[in-house]
Amino acid sequence: MNGMIFTAEELAYLAAQPLGRLATLAPDGTLQNNPVGFEVNAEEGFIDIGGWRMGGSRKFANIRQNPEVSFVVDDIASLQPWTVRGMEIRGRAEAVTGVPRGAEDFLSGEVIRIRPRRIRSWGIPDGEAGSARWTPLPETP
Amino acid sequence: MNGMIFTAEELAYLAAQPLGRLATLAPDGTLQNNPVGFEVNAEEGFIDIGGWRMGGSRKFANIRQNPEVSFVVDDIASLQPWTVRGMEIRGRAEAVTGVPRGAEDFLSGEVIRIRPRRIRSWGIPDGEAGSARWTPLPETP
Repeated sequence: MNGMIFTAEELAYLAAQPLGRLATLAPDGTLQNNPVGFEVNAEEGFIDIGGWRMGGSRKFANIRQNPEVSFVVDDIASLQPWTVRGMEIRGRAEAVTGVPRGAEDFLSGEVIRIRPRRIRSWGIPDGEAGSARWTPLPETP
Repeated sequence: MNGMIFTAEELAYLAAQPLGRLATLAPDGTLQNNPVGFEVNAEEGFIDIGGWRMGGSRKFANIRQNPEVSFVVDDIASLQPWTVRGMEIRGRAEAVTGVPRGAEDFLSGEVIRIRPRRIRSWGIPDGEAGSARWTPLPETP
């Protein structure tokens, strides 16, 4: 995957948000949706989701069965007028193991690595409602 | 569906949160995840998600094809120590039309109505991490 899939404004926005929400699909066809911390690798163009006991989690098992994910990062930009801004990142994820975690050794060595295929953002950078765009990305070979 | 499926603490928590995130499944098998406002009907035991142009939205179309949803409401209870609390509500949703919206006439008359089948909450009310519980609910006939 080619890097630089996010704009500078999007990278700044993602860096400022402490949580995103990851939707995965369970083998029985039900959906799962969880708040997660995340880290963007701007050069490589992926997003890593780690966490405490990630390797034993249901979401980690889910994406091993079905890699489709949707990851949304949003916040309330203004209460008056009511304005929600954010980004929705759709793509496929892989269950990566053996990731060195450095100082954050309370986290496990497993991460969910999202390779974006479509990125939708709204209200970034200008806060305007309804300014959604979709960025179709090349398929990974 | 029988009412009173939420505890008093859960109802208070939900009432205090301005946004949740709704995961739906598109007909092509990809996932969608969106920040949404919501309203809990405690007596009837459902959650309504409305919004501007709901009837024309992709999520509304998604649940007409596949009613499975996962709806998560969460926030950061404490930065130090890092504590996220919230609720994940899984179930089936219906695309309801012709809902009277009263004073909020900028919203459309369509809502996504979630009938919870499983409710997981963590950190409510006591903020303790890892205190997840699942409440299995009776199947709707």
